[in-house]
Amino acid sequence: MNSTLERFGRRIRLGVIGGGPGSFIGPVHRAAARLADRYEVVAGVLSSDPAKSRRCGIEVGFAPDRAYRDAAAFFAGERGRADRVDAVAIMTPNDSHYALCCAAIAAGMDIICDKPLTTSLTDAMDLQRRVEESGIVFCHTFNYTGYPLVRQARAMVRDGELGEIRLVQVEYVYGNSAEIVEGETEDPPRHWHYRHESMGSSLILLDIGSHAHHMVRFVTGREFESVSADVARIVPGRKSDDHASLLFRMEGGAHGVMWITQSAAGSVNGLQFRVFGARGGLIWRQETPNQLHHLRHRQPEQIFERNGPGLKPEAVRACHVAMGHPEGYQEAFSTLYDDAAEAIVSRRLGESPRFPLSEMPTVADGVRTLQFVEAALASARDGRWARCGSPD
Amino acid sequence: MNSTLERFGRRIRLGVIGGGPGSFIGPVHRAAARLADRYEVVAGVLSSDPAKSRRCGIEVGFAPDRAYRDAAAFFAGERGRADRVDAVAIMTPNDSHYALCCAAIAAGMDIICDKPLTTSLTDAMDLQRRVEESGIVFCHTFNYTGYPLVRQARAMVRDGELGEIRLVQVEYVYGNSAEIVEGETEDPPRHWHYRHESMGSSLILLDIGSHAHHMVRFVTGREFESVSADVARIVPGRKSDDHASLLFRMEGGAHGVMWITQSAAGSVNGLQFRVFGARGGLIWRQETPNQLHHLRHRQPEQIFERNGPGLKPEAVRACHVAMGHPEGYQEAFSTLYDDAAEAIVSRRLGESPRFPLSEMPTVADGVRTLQFVEAALASARDGRWARCGSPD
Amino acid sequence: MNSTLERFGRRIRLGVIGGGPGSFIGPVHRAAARLADRYEVVAGVLSSDPAKSRRCGIEVGFAPDRAYRDAAAFFAGERGRADRVDAVAIMTPNDSHYALCCAAIAAGMDIICDKPLTTSLTDAMDLQRRVEESGIVFCHTFNYTGYPLVRQARAMVRDGELGEIRLVQVEYVYGNSAEIVEGETEDPPRHWHYRHESMGSSLILLDIGSHAHHMVRFVTGREFESVSADVARIVPGRKSDDHASLLFRMEGGAHGVMWITQSAAGSVNGLQFRVFGARGGLIWRQETPNQLHHLRHRQPEQIFERNGPGLKPEAVRACHVAMGHPEGYQEAFSTLYDDAAEAIVSRRLGESPRFPLSEMPTVADGVRTLQFVEAALASARDGRWARCGSPD
Amino acid sequence: MNSTLERFGRRIRLGVIGGGPGSFIGPVHRAAARLADRYEVVAGVLSSDPAKSRRCGIEVGFAPDRAYRDAAAFFAGERGRADRVDAVAIMTPNDSHYALCCAAIAAGMDIICDKPLTTSLTDAMDLQRRVEESGIVFCHTFNYTGYPLVRQARAMVRDGELGEIRLVQVEYVYGNSAEIVEGETEDPPRHWHYRHESMGSSLILLDIGSHAHHMVRFVTGREFESVSADVARIVPGRKSDDHASLLFRMEGGAHGVMWITQSAAGSVNGLQFRVFGARGGLIWRQETPNQLHHLRHRQPEQIFERNGPGLKPEAVRACHVAMGHPEGYQEAFSTLYDDAAEAIVSRRLGESPRFPLSEMPTVADGVRTLQFVEAALASARDGRWARCGSPD
Repeated sequence: MNSTLERFGRRIRLGVIGGGPGSFIGPVHRAAARLADRYEVVAGVLSSDPAKSRRCGIEVGFAPDRAYRDAAAFFAGERGRADRVDAVAIMTPNDSHYALCCAAIAAGMDIICDKPLTTSLTDAMDLQRRVEESGIVFCHTFNYTGYPLVRQARAMVRDGELGEIRLVQVEYVYGNSAEIVEGETEDPPRHWHYRHESMGSSLILLDIGSHAHHMVRFVTGREFESVSADVARIVPGRKSDDHASLLFRMEGGAHGVMWITQSAAGSVNGLQFRVFGARGGLIWRQETPNQLHHLRHRQPEQIFERNGPGLKPEAVRACHVAMGHPEGYQEAFSTLYDDAAEAIVSRRLGESPRFPLSEMPTVADGVRTLQFVEAALASARDGRWARCGSPD
Repeated sequence: MNSTLERFGRRIRLGVIGGGPGSFIGPVHRAAARLADRYEVVAGVLSSDPAKSRRCGIEVGFAPDRAYRDAAAFFAGERGRADRVDAVAIMTPNDSHYALCCAAIAAGMDIICDKPLTTSLTDAMDLQRRVEESGIVFCHTFNYTGYPLVRQARAMVRDGELGEIRLVQVEYVYGNSAEIVEGETEDPPRHWHYRHESMGSSLILLDIGSHAHHMVRFVTGREFESVSADVARIVPGRKSDDHASLLFRMEGGAHGVMWITQSAAGSVNGLQFRVFGARGGLIWRQETPNQLHHLRHRQPEQIFERNGPGLKPEAVRACHVAMGHPEGYQEAFSTLYDDAAEAIVSRRLGESPRFPLSEMPTVADGVRTLQFVEAALASARDGRWARCGSPD
Repeated sequence: MNSTLERFGRRIRLGVIGGGPGSFIGPVHRAAARLADRYEVVAGVLSSDPAKSRRCGIEVGFAPDRAYRDAAAFFAGERGRADRVDAVAIMTPNDSHYALCCAAIAAGMDIICDKPLTTSLTDAMDLQRRVEESGIVFCHTFNYTGYPLVRQARAMVRDGELGEIRLVQVEYVYGNSAEIVEGETEDPPRHWHYRHESMGSSLILLDIGSHAHHMVRFVTGREFESVSADVARIVPGRKSDDHASLLFRMEGGAHGVMWITQSAAGSVNGLQFRVFGARGGLIWRQETPNQLHHLRHRQPEQIFERNGPGLKPEAVRACHVAMGHPEGYQEAFSTLYDDAAEAIVSRRLGESPRFPLSEMPTVADGVRTLQFVEAALASARDGRWARCGSPD
Repeated sequence: MNSTLERFGRRIRLGVIGGGPGSFIGPVHRAAARLADRYEVVAGVLSSDPAKSRRCGIEVGFAPDRAYRDAAAFFAGERGRADRVDAVAIMTPNDSHYALCCAAIAAGMDIICDKPLTTSLTDAMDLQRRVEESGIVFCHTFNYTGYPLVRQARAMVRDGELGEIRLVQVEYVYGNSAEIVEGETEDPPRHWHYRHESMGSSLILLDIGSHAHHMVRFVTGREFESVSADVARIVPGRKSDDHASLLFRMEGGAHGVMWITQSAAGSVNGLQFRVFGARGGLIWRQETPNQLHHLRHRQPEQIFERNGPGLKPEAVRACHVAMGHPEGYQEAFSTLYDDAAEAIVSRRLGESPRFPLSEMPTVADGVRTLQFVEAALASARDGRWARCGSPD
């Protein structure tokens, strides 16, 4: 039943850096690990305030000596233990990812790391090199790819069920930042999300744009070639970008359009993609993730249900409960933790993974994000199309 | 009850040019006129083939001497009659609109004319001048503006219910041309829709792009300032554009994105707009036109029903039947005929219209379309943003 | 194109009785006749107040001598004319249908009559006999059967695409009478809808229950065998029924459940049916009438679009415009007018109709309604199942 | 953060009985416990086959001496341990619940038990008495009440936001048993779901009917008074009921209708309720559980989003992640585990719970189910209305 227990003899020991009190993503990571049932979360750093970090670590159940005050103490402490963590999950401000990942690699820990990879393309490429040289597992949490019907879409495109891909539309229309919040315009702003140095070049592109960009690559299996972008601050007084609209062209000739914003007042969490080929199209919406709409040329539309008829093996594998019993955000997140666990256990045992891991986003995907963001910002600045560089 | 009968003493006599056998739009125009119940369709030209035109005219019920062989005969014949038509509805290939409208103006007939206005901006501006000098009524059938909830959206924006407008998304995703059809690649193609000389510069922009463009202007009450466009032929072998994606900026600072295509395989007739201001947003979809979604910042979404609670007077006026009894395409089209009838009767009686006619699209809107198309094509050609000229 | 003009040499001359100022259904009947384009509405009685009837008749465009003061004058006047009406549409209070239909039969006029047929089963059966003996056309306006996708559902069931029918659910959940309205509790109430003598035995069953009952028979092609009913007045102070819930069993063994109310506060016009057989099910909702959901055992759900792929000929015939251009209530109503026109023209020419008329509801369907209502009321009174009599 | 750790000093030790290999509900219970993060699942009996039970227990991670061969061994083994389980979760065939609960009470363990409570009303009432006398916590997993928007609906009804409740509709339309499965018609059938002695009197009523019945009581806060039922086997050859439709009346005068089936071919897991009062109604559908539709008399419909604006405290408390990040079945299940944990910790500490526990379904709710089923079966047998007894 639980292949980690069976093969590895125990659950994977996981440390976490980031995601303390008030964090949205910290509890999600820990819940995803629990849902996957292949990890024990045993150690971590839960705040940039050392005292708070220790207190919170104890509150979430770490042994007192594994509720660390900071990342340096974490790496030092864990390296010295026989029962040290196998892997570390990193969910800190964007500008700290690079250094923490380097430290984890040095410590031989497998990595689960939030997006974006880094705040500069140079760092991203350096990190990719280090990961590849070390051979560690790197799971990059483009979590929306964990939804079963997103994996179904990818498999259908790959298997040619839509015909040659011609058109892509992706959007991430979010409403939560439709007004200036307290502390946002202070210098520096209270929340790291609004600090340029923490976020890197562009809040909107690195934060939700990275999800939209990866989703298109994931589903189509194709790379971006060039982009024409409009990047803007639409809430008066805001100092970071909160809107971007982009035209793009892809390898193989598909044309695309992307719309992302955090300031569409009244919107919820509207990530959606549509992809059309010669024979039909697919529509998936994150807010109703248990259905995938399959438009068919000269045939009635059909709707795939999660864990229902017509699903590909990789979609079925990502399902947690029976058809009709909705799954959501945490289950999708947990599927990435399951992928990572399979990769970690297999690497450490020197065995082949028991299922293909090609869906698991990794460091190379993070590099692609940075290339895309760089191209989009260049385009927006120059009012011209810009090419999305390739990593070699 | 029927204000045309009451005020004008009879129904408006209408002639039609175009829309014969096999036409989609011809029966729609005539049904819209019947639904409005303020017209008698009494004369016309129903085919470019003279014999067929005569036969079809008789088949739809014209008196034999008013089933004309061609447009010249129509204008000559009607000018000579005491009971001549008051107005003419024009639904011929795009490149004939200009000459037919000029002839109608010369004959003193009020005009109901399909979009696009003409195939060149020069002709469009000349036509606008002639219409304005003659004082005739010119109703330009951007028919989707006849939907009651589109009028509700416009009124809500105008009344500030969304706050200052920041974001606009509009799309017209259509699937019917996802493959090459018989005769399309002949030279000239069998159907005028695929002929460059008939359609003007760009099939996609003039045909459905014009609807998307006008819809944005209609709902926001603002003009386009500049546009960045990608215009393409995505079906292999096609000789006319069938896809365009556009970024745009509007007067007052709103940012927009537009996606239009006739070749999204499996799609139906997906015209949709979303508009967001500081306080909320609106979503309307042509395929479910009886609902308008009102997203509200920090309040639950609400849904306006056609002819239901919370509607503005201009939306209520455009309703034909009670809430919950769906209306559709023909009713919306008929609302434009109702607008036009009010304008025609009022002009001929020298009276004020009994309701405001600011929603009726007119020749000036057609000129704006041509300016937009010209800017979009320039942008697509140059890979740069282009300004949308203003008519003066 | 217009087969009535072609075959009959002219449009059918139609008189109307009922549907004057303030009426919902009067304008709908007249619009449906105009949409069908096979009728001229030339004469009628538009109010029970003779002066008002004359004035309104002129207002809607009748010649002054055909704007009659009452039904007696209408029948007398029309019988005396060479150009007398071919058919009469009756939309008066329920308790007048019987006498008006008898008069129309005596005058040799074909009949289009609103539901319910009569207010007593005895009258209904007598009327059926008279209609059958006279041979006139009787179109009974169960208008929701005019929707193309309702006809698609019927054809799919008939062709065995769901397998043997096992389950039926139908509901008509309406919100408009969720509170007592002015004049409702006067004695007699101001609006005939609330008068027992006008409505017959049960407002809820005869008014919207009749639609629900006929819809089930229409779609399944099977008769009701027995029923267990709860009939109630849920708005305090109301003197007529406004809620009924019913269990039923059908010929062939299917089990059903029906829920109808006019007092579900906040509801719109929620007529919906679901029918399930061994291999799948169908769901149709009047508020989104352009889609039919086809649930399939061990296959993904598919959605039929009006005038789209996979439609049966009888569904296509009921479509007015292209797929994706929504149709609604008036178009569905107009399809019954088209059916009636085909029946009328064919009968008068002694020819076969050019398409099958088995979908047109007729007097026999009206008798079934009365039998069903009688059984339901008996069941509600006795707290037991009751059999729905058959007309033998 | 984790109030169990903080207050109780450790997580609650949980044993499980049932839910081994091939079970749907076993993994759900264990995932719900992990999600709630207040339990350690440390011991259990995972199969009725002793060897399999031991093997599976070890596979899911129990210490070998706590992977018990059967329930007797479980109770004996745990009673002898200092670190014995605080609570036991029971998910075995229906006819074993009574004895297992009695054993747990005798062992002083708190209980989390699947529905239905027992297979006879006598046993159910006896069990209620024992639970009450012992003072243990009894959480009865009517898991659909864990959805945040179901709790919102309950709170809105309680706070009078719909006005006096008049109408209730509930349905559970499931498709999975639309055909006879392998082994179903053997004697005894292979799966306990189809065995009369395991299921009790009526598969359909005890299995999904119990959810529908409890949902109505939960949301309205009112009891059933009487019921008229049609209970049937619609799949040919089936020996257990797979369809029931019911009319019912509630305390306070509301009228209701219920439709439940496991054999609606092509359906998924369609639990839905609608409740209407004088001022409006609510609609919730299990398949899209993150929205609650609020119909309002003479105002536009509004839609509540999980964790969004307008939610009551008890609904917010049941939310796990931010608005727009969907939650599903497992999260709802986990909310009951969180309720139970609060009850267990508070009881053992002799403290008040930190939040009200009135939403947690308990043994008394299980008794109500059995009373309802008894009344429904009597009604179906007699063809008459039957009263739902009250527990005293």
